[in-house]
Amino acid sequence: MAKPKLRIIPIGGLGEIGKNMTAFEMGKDVFIIDTGIMFPANDMHGVDYIIPDFRYLQERKDITIHGIVYTHGHEDHIGAVAHVIEAFPNTPIYATPLTAGLLEVRLRERRVADKTKINVFTAGDKLKVGPFLLESFHMCHSIPDCVGFGIYTPFGLIVYSGDYKFDNNPVDGKKPDYARLARFASEGVTLLMAESTNADKPGWTPSETVIDEAFDRVFKKAKGRIFVATFASLISRVQQVVNAAERYGRKVAIAGHSMSENVKMARRLGILDLPDTMLLDVSKINSISDNQIVIMLTGAQGEPTAALTKIANGEHRQLEIKPGDTIILSSHPIPGNEEFVYRTINRLFRLGANVIYDPIEKVHVSGHASQDEMKLLLNLVKPKYFLPTHGELRHLYEHAQIAVSCGVDRNNTFVVENGTVIEMDKYGVKVGERVPGGYVFVDGSGVGDVGRAVIRDREILAQDGFLIVVANIDSRTGKMLGQPEIISRGFTYLRDADTLLEQIRNTVQEVITNPNNRNGRKREKLQDSLSRLLYNETKRRPMVFSIINEQ
Amino acid sequence: MAKPKLRIIPIGGLGEIGKNMTAFEMGKDVFIIDTGIMFPANDMHGVDYIIPDFRYLQERKDITIHGIVYTHGHEDHIGAVAHVIEAFPNTPIYATPLTAGLLEVRLRERRVADKTKINVFTAGDKLKVGPFLLESFHMCHSIPDCVGFGIYTPFGLIVYSGDYKFDNNPVDGKKPDYARLARFASEGVTLLMAESTNADKPGWTPSETVIDEAFDRVFKKAKGRIFVATFASLISRVQQVVNAAERYGRKVAIAGHSMSENVKMARRLGILDLPDTMLLDVSKINSISDNQIVIMLTGAQGEPTAALTKIANGEHRQLEIKPGDTIILSSHPIPGNEEFVYRTINRLFRLGANVIYDPIEKVHVSGHASQDEMKLLLNLVKPKYFLPTHGELRHLYEHAQIAVSCGVDRNNTFVVENGTVIEMDKYGVKVGERVPGGYVFVDGSGVGDVGRAVIRDREILAQDGFLIVVANIDSRTGKMLGQPEIISRGFTYLRDADTLLEQIRNTVQEVITNPNNRNGRKREKLQDSLSRLLYNETKRRPMVFSIINEQ
Repeated sequence: MAKPKLRIIPIGGLGEIGKNMTAFEMGKDVFIIDTGIMFPANDMHGVDYIIPDFRYLQERKDITIHGIVYTHGHEDHIGAVAHVIEAFPNTPIYATPLTAGLLEVRLRERRVADKTKINVFTAGDKLKVGPFLLESFHMCHSIPDCVGFGIYTPFGLIVYSGDYKFDNNPVDGKKPDYARLARFASEGVTLLMAESTNADKPGWTPSETVIDEAFDRVFKKAKGRIFVATFASLISRVQQVVNAAERYGRKVAIAGHSMSENVKMARRLGILDLPDTMLLDVSKINSISDNQIVIMLTGAQGEPTAALTKIANGEHRQLEIKPGDTIILSSHPIPGNEEFVYRTINRLFRLGANVIYDPIEKVHVSGHASQDEMKLLLNLVKPKYFLPTHGELRHLYEHAQIAVSCGVDRNNTFVVENGTVIEMDKYGVKVGERVPGGYVFVDGSGVGDVGRAVIRDREILAQDGFLIVVANIDSRTGKMLGQPEIISRGFTYLRDADTLLEQIRNTVQEVITNPNNRNGRKREKLQDSLSRLLYNETKRRPMVFSIINEQ
Repeated sequence: MAKPKLRIIPIGGLGEIGKNMTAFEMGKDVFIIDTGIMFPANDMHGVDYIIPDFRYLQERKDITIHGIVYTHGHEDHIGAVAHVIEAFPNTPIYATPLTAGLLEVRLRERRVADKTKINVFTAGDKLKVGPFLLESFHMCHSIPDCVGFGIYTPFGLIVYSGDYKFDNNPVDGKKPDYARLARFASEGVTLLMAESTNADKPGWTPSETVIDEAFDRVFKKAKGRIFVATFASLISRVQQVVNAAERYGRKVAIAGHSMSENVKMARRLGILDLPDTMLLDVSKINSISDNQIVIMLTGAQGEPTAALTKIANGEHRQLEIKPGDTIILSSHPIPGNEEFVYRTINRLFRLGANVIYDPIEKVHVSGHASQDEMKLLLNLVKPKYFLPTHGELRHLYEHAQIAVSCGVDRNNTFVVENGTVIEMDKYGVKVGERVPGGYVFVDGSGVGDVGRAVIRDREILAQDGFLIVVANIDSRTGKMLGQPEIISRGFTYLRDADTLLEQIRNTVQEVITNPNNRNGRKREKLQDSLSRLLYNETKRRPMVFSIINEQ
């Protein structure tokens, strides 16, 4: 029999490691922390979103997944819940109230809410998940109701940070649970798993409350309507906007489906304090004067279908910019989105709005710990081993160096990629085997059917388009019947390219009537000749196909 | 006769205004400042680069272009020179030595070096360009030999800043020409045209020399080879690397064509001080020990064909990473490039390198003035009118506000887009008509043939690919002959989609044999039915085409 050990398996993530989903496996017993999604890079054409590749768990028919526990309600931690529940129906879920509410929305959307039970706990609660004992502790982040976990194992205590920052003035007044972290340290922490997002940022991430001061400055000056764009799930930011609106005698309207749904849910749970008297329907914003309105909406990342983007493009059903409007973008562009964010800002300026964004005003701060907070966590928890998680490789390397600077033995830090098993037994912690743990593309209703080959084709099509020629030939004479049909998109505007069209027709004629081209090889030959012609004439390489019908 | 006036026309730019090219027109006399290119946004599929749309000048058959004067040698200011000289052959060029050298390379590449004459001047020289008198003055930037211009007109003096920063410790020791700016002010400046790139950055941009200290820290620690990646045209950065290499007893190898060409030219001109004894051929780097080598190369922006990107992908012909290598990325990601830059960094870490980039170390600073420098320029020059240039709309708005805060009348500041004529006459400065002044896509050998329609098609193809069905039918019976031929790319991997293929075949059969479908409409009908089928089954919308051959 194999010696007992705990296996920790980071799964999913695109560039980022140990963030979307982590499995903890001991013998046949498994539990999972988080089930998030990621959004595609700019060159992953057509992909809607990306889910963790949890094939390894699916193929292990012998295991029991006792539960999925959640740290917080952001998409990169909960977004794939329906996919996971579809694969492992009846797995119980454990989450804090807000996270549970957000999970329920995702489960209902995909019609799998009846396939699991959500067990709601509050920060500080202990959870029994199969044979595992977890102790949750409150951490601050950019969404309320955020927790980390102490995980008790036969081989020592693991502390799992979740996304966090040490915010000493959090919007909801709930401080990080320093006491429990210190208590864990006094019990002795074998392994710390901590997030690395800002491992390259020196210093201390500012408290969320610095945003209040920025809002005050902007609200004081604004003479017309104020729009505030942020993430739909950034409930504490919504609260800050509501508070500012109250201070300046403005009512709040919520635009867009996802933001409205989240606000509704957070109000119901009592997490968002937004009285009925302050809420205004978007359709009624013309009924009161402009300086009494704040409109909250999505689109701070320049997402093409979000409300702010539609407004900037003049395509929103209900809202349009007028001179005197103030627009606040309360978020930082995620890498890859910068172009789209700045394009939106420029369009809003062109429409006459005054646009406020960082660095013009400090209307956003990161929700993630910077280097000095990482050091504080390491020094509070005093782990023997350190596994940096939640970051790109470059962040994990930096975070490991920070751990070493705080006294962790360099050999006890592990920089690994998704699918690399970390093994823990009574002798210590070490790197184990590699299992499938990457990611899967979701495109439309397809999960995993769009792979690298299809993406590569999309890239070629995106660069130079395609051209198809269909020629009919008389099977007796070998002569062409009529003109070949030419279909092309994304290559050049063929209607304006008479010479090129003529050259294409001539090439088809030549190849087909050339007696040296054996019948079976004419199609291939035609494709080659056309590709060469198009490259010589345009220096482009569209995909070229030919079909020859013999009649 | 129309009253005499000077017309200033900003041309080109993608999002950015008044940067790539500016025409100054008085009656029939014209001169141009700069002729730059821009690089496409991530959603401008397949476009190689973008040149200014100078159609307006081409259509004005009555004018004489007396010359093109250049501020400095960066691509976004010189890159389109060959296109402009092709359109206006024999137009003389005026440039400082380094800029002239870089221009010559561009002109030779496109084989038009014989169609113009480059007149070399040095900062401080006065230029007579047709009836215009220009007085050049030295400015600091991230490339040596950078100038701005005082432009004397019958309606007052214009000061044109060019790209600049007030660097009081420049690498080449040449300070900004404060004295001349002050002298202009004493003569009275009617209009200041100044660059706005960093108008949202508070404070003062650090001097280029802070990089020396960062290089020192990195060079001191590095035990193996050092690679420094930056822009090929960043000659002063190359000098800083050479100086650091000398301090730490390392030789310098240059990898990649464009970097090698620029270094060769800059050495020839005496702008780069790199003695033969320090230069090592890339092919010989294995002949000396690792801690005696610095390799300079391109790819700090994650450009797919640059040396560093190839190395990170393990695809470089001569160079590969080994553990112990230190890689310095001496540049900031340009918006839109972040994903690719970070991907390169992560890959280099994976190969065992230690990667140094800002914010890990201050190995790059911006070459553009921040807000306090903008204020200094405004207060030095004391213009009556202010035209912010060189920036996105959002930067121009900020810069105009800065000018107002420095005492320029708000009504005397102009935030305009490319193609908007600024008119200056004896009564003052005002906004005039709009002329074509946007941009033109260059794709392969095609200039302007790829327009919005083709880009839109490429976007659709990139998202969901295409599917084409070719069916042969018997013209007498209306029955299908054999199976339809199906070609698809970028949609889904059809070989694994048996059910879908079957459904496609059935749809073709149904539509073709349905007697309600009149012959002439079958093709359109087939396309509609297939589009619907594919959307229902996959929630994707590939381009669908059908061809029906009657035999």
